[in-house]
Amino acid sequence: MIDIKNLLNSDDLSKNDIYEIVDLANDIIKSPKDFSHVCEGKILGTLFFEPSTRTRLSFESAMLRLGGSVVGFSDANVSSSTKGETLQDTVKVVSQYADIIAMRHPQEGAAYLASLTADCPIINAGDGGHQHPTQTLTDVLTISQYKHTLDNHTIGIVGDLKYGRTVHSLIKIMNLFDNNKYILISPEELKLPQYVKKEVFKDNDNYDEVTNLDEVIGEIDILYMTRIQKERFFSTSQYTRLKDSYVLDMEKMNKARKDTIVLHPLPRVNEIATEVDKDPRAVYFNQVKYGMYARMALIYKLLEANNA
Amino acid sequence: MIDIKNLLNSDDLSKNDIYEIVDLANDIIKSPKDFSHVCEGKILGTLFFEPSTRTRLSFESAMLRLGGSVVGFSDANVSSSTKGETLQDTVKVVSQYADIIAMRHPQEGAAYLASLTADCPIINAGDGGHQHPTQTLTDVLTISQYKHTLDNHTIGIVGDLKYGRTVHSLIKIMNLFDNNKYILISPEELKLPQYVKKEVFKDNDNYDEVTNLDEVIGEIDILYMTRIQKERFFSTSQYTRLKDSYVLDMEKMNKARKDTIVLHPLPRVNEIATEVDKDPRAVYFNQVKYGMYARMALIYKLLEANNA
Amino acid sequence: MIDIKNLLNSDDLSKNDIYEIVDLANDIIKSPKDFSHVCEGKILGTLFFEPSTRTRLSFESAMLRLGGSVVGFSDANVSSSTKGETLQDTVKVVSQYADIIAMRHPQEGAAYLASLTADCPIINAGDGGHQHPTQTLTDVLTISQYKHTLDNHTIGIVGDLKYGRTVHSLIKIMNLFDNNKYILISPEELKLPQYVKKEVFKDNDNYDEVTNLDEVIGEIDILYMTRIQKERFFSTSQYTRLKDSYVLDMEKMNKARKDTIVLHPLPRVNEIATEVDKDPRAVYFNQVKYGMYARMALIYKLLEANNA
Repeated sequence: MIDIKNLLNSDDLSKNDIYEIVDLANDIIKSPKDFSHVCEGKILGTLFFEPSTRTRLSFESAMLRLGGSVVGFSDANVSSSTKGETLQDTVKVVSQYADIIAMRHPQEGAAYLASLTADCPIINAGDGGHQHPTQTLTDVLTISQYKHTLDNHTIGIVGDLKYGRTVHSLIKIMNLFDNNKYILISPEELKLPQYVKKEVFKDNDNYDEVTNLDEVIGEIDILYMTRIQKERFFSTSQYTRLKDSYVLDMEKMNKARKDTIVLHPLPRVNEIATEVDKDPRAVYFNQVKYGMYARMALIYKLLEANNA
Repeated sequence: MIDIKNLLNSDDLSKNDIYEIVDLANDIIKSPKDFSHVCEGKILGTLFFEPSTRTRLSFESAMLRLGGSVVGFSDANVSSSTKGETLQDTVKVVSQYADIIAMRHPQEGAAYLASLTADCPIINAGDGGHQHPTQTLTDVLTISQYKHTLDNHTIGIVGDLKYGRTVHSLIKIMNLFDNNKYILISPEELKLPQYVKKEVFKDNDNYDEVTNLDEVIGEIDILYMTRIQKERFFSTSQYTRLKDSYVLDMEKMNKARKDTIVLHPLPRVNEIATEVDKDPRAVYFNQVKYGMYARMALIYKLLEANNA
Repeated sequence: MIDIKNLLNSDDLSKNDIYEIVDLANDIIKSPKDFSHVCEGKILGTLFFEPSTRTRLSFESAMLRLGGSVVGFSDANVSSSTKGETLQDTVKVVSQYADIIAMRHPQEGAAYLASLTADCPIINAGDGGHQHPTQTLTDVLTISQYKHTLDNHTIGIVGDLKYGRTVHSLIKIMNLFDNNKYILISPEELKLPQYVKKEVFKDNDNYDEVTNLDEVIGEIDILYMTRIQKERFFSTSQYTRLKDSYVLDMEKMNKARKDTIVLHPLPRVNEIATEVDKDPRAVYFNQVKYGMYARMALIYKLLEANNA
C-alpha cells in the first residue's frame, strides 16, 4: 500500500510505490473485469482550471472503468463563477462532494496548496510547467510493458530539454532503478541546464549529450521524443535550420534497432512524421492507453489507502 | 447485424440496415429495462468540435440508458488545448479511452478522416452542412412509429430545400422503400437544386414542386417542416413577404388530414406556431425522444458488430 | 409524500414538506448505501444557462450518489447553439431525454416558464436574484443537523440584507416553525427593506435590527453570514469604513457562545477570516455537504412522487 495521501509531485514516489502502481496496472490490464466495480459509489472530481482534454479524458475514463463516476469542470471560464473565492475554498467545497480530486492549474504549487485544505486525496494533473506526475507514471508503465524491466536501459531523450520539465521528472524516476543511462539530444540552446543536471543526476555520470539524433539512434532502447516550440529559439532562421534534425521519420527509424521503442507524451506537432505511426516500434498511442491504466491503478490505490 | 464499422454517411445505410435499427429501436421502446445494462462497462466519447447541445445530450442519454458511460467535450474552446494537434491524432487518442465515438465537426469529411485512424467505431454527429445520419435515422424511426410502414407515403417537405441537406438525406433514404412520393414546398429561390434532384430521385419522377403549403396540405401524410433562414433570401422585403406562407399554424393545420403527422428536426424558430404544439398530429417533440431511441439502437448495434 | 411536481420557489414548501425532506436526508446521511441505487436508470439534466460550479456539482454528485446519471451543460455559450430556440422549447427537448431537470438561468421566472412545457419535474437551481430554493433546504437541513430542532432559535443574519434574497427565503421558511427570532445585522443602507419585512415577517414582530455584530454575537444560536458586495455601497470610503464590522474573525468568535453555529451560503470573499475555519462552530463547509444530501432527498422525492 502506498503511504501517501495525495500525488502532488513525482518526487514523492519511491521505487516501491512505482512497483506497486506498475504491478497493479498490470493486473488491471490482464483482467479489467475484475476491477470494473471496485470504485462503485465513488466520485472523482476533475477540476481543470485550464483545459487539457487529453489528460482530463484519461482521468475520467480511468474512473469510469473502475465503476466510479465523475463530476467537474473543464476550463477556467466555467469556474470563474466563483466570484473571488480562493482556490483553497473551491477545492475544499468540491472535496465535500467528491472522494478524490484530479486538478490542473496554470500556477505552480496550486495542487499542493489545494491539498492543505481538501478533505479528500488530490492528484496533481499538471500545475504550470512544474509537475505532471501521472505523465511520469504513464511513461514508466509503458516502458515496463514493452521492456519487462525498469533497469538497464539506454534512454534517448530528444527535443527541448531546457524547459520540458516532464523530461526532468522522467530522468529522476528512472534513476531510482539500476543501471539506466541517458543520451540527451537537443540543440545547444535547449540543453539540460546545469542546475537541473545536478538535481536529476546527483553524483551519477550516466549521460551523454549530443546535438544529432542520427548519430546515436542505433544505441537507444527507449527513444523519448518531445515537442520543440518555435518560440524557444533565438531566431526563426535558426529554428528552420535545426528543426529537421529532431524530426523522427522512417529514414531515421531505419537506423534504429529492432527492439527500440518510441515514446512521446503527445500532442505531437510535426516532430514525428505520420509515416512512423505504422511502425510497430512507435508505441506512443499505446502509451496513451497505458496512461489510462496507470491512472486507474493510482486512483484505486489512493482511494484504498485513504479508506483503510 | 449491420456490417459497417462506422456510421459516417446516411448513404452507407441499406434498406436492411434501416429495418434492423428500426426493429431494435422498437424492442428498446417496448421494454427499455431489457437494454438498461447491455453497454455496461463501455464508454462513449462525445467529441463536439462545435456545440450542439441537443444532439450531444441525445447521444449521451442514449448511452446512459444502455448502462454505459460518457466522456467528451462540448465545444472547440475546450479542445483548443490540443496545441496544433491534428484532428486525426485527437480522435486516435480518444479512441484509446472510448469504445465508440460520436463526433461533430464544422468541416465536411471530418468524421471520415477521423475514421481512418480511430481504433473504435465513429458515428458522424454532423460534419458541417454535409451529413447528419442519425437525424435521418430519427426521422425514419418516427415515421415508422406513427405509420407502421416505411412504404406508400406522401411526404411534404417545407422550407429551405436548397441548403437544407438533411432533407436530401431523408428523401434518399425514403426512396429505398416502395411507392413514396414527395411534395416539395418552398419559395422559388430555395427549391431543390437540379443536381440534387438527380442524386436523390435518380430516374424516379415521384415528386411535385409547389410554392404554397396551403394548397397541398390536405394531400400530405407526413409533413416535414424545416427552418427558413433569413440570410438565404435575396432581400429582407422578400423574406418578410414570403415567410408566413411557410409558417404552420392552426389555420393551416385545420386543412390537414386527421392522420397527417408533423415532423421537424428542431430547433424551430417561428416556422411552427406554438399553438400547434398541443395538436396530437404535432409529433416533433416525440421525434426528439425517438432520436434518443434510434441512437440507442445504433450504438448498441455498432458495439456488438465490432466486438463480435 | 410531497405533492408538488416541481420545486420552483421555496414558498411552495410547506412545513410538512420540509420535515419530509429533512427526515429523508437524515436517513440518507445515516445509511447512504441504502440509497445508492434508488435512482438507477434515471437521468438528471443540469441546464445551467449561467455558470455556477458549486451548485451544479452539488446536484450532479447528489444524483450520482443515488445511482442515477447526469447529462447537461454548464454555461450559456455551450447552449447558445440553439439558434434562436425559446427557453421553453430547449427545456421541452431536454425533458425527452432526462427524468428530472435542475436548471439555473439569469432571468427571474425562467424555471416557472420552463415548468409549463417540460415533460418532467423541474428544480429551480437559481433564477437571477429571485429564488434558489435548494439553498434554503440546505440551510434548514444544516440547522436541523446541529440543533436537532427547527424551533426556538435566535438567528443572526449578517451582511447585505437588502439585495440578498436567499436570506429572505430563509426567514420565511424558518417562520413556518415555532418561536424563532431574528437579529438582522447590517449597515443602515443595506437593511431589510420595509416591503420585504411585511412579506417575510407578516404580523410577527420577532426581530431586532442592529448595525454592529460585536454587540449581539453572544445572543445568537445560528449566525448566518453573507457577502457584502463593494458595489452596494454609496462610496468606497464608506465601504472601507464599514466592512470590517461585518468580518467574522476569532476576536468576534471569542464572544460567541459555545453552541453557536456559523453558516454561510458560500462562496465567501473575506467576510469570514480563514482562522475561523478550524473552529468547530464554523460549519459552513459541512453545510456544503448537507446541501448535497438535501438535493439527494429532493431529487428522490420528486422522482418518486412523479412516478407513482
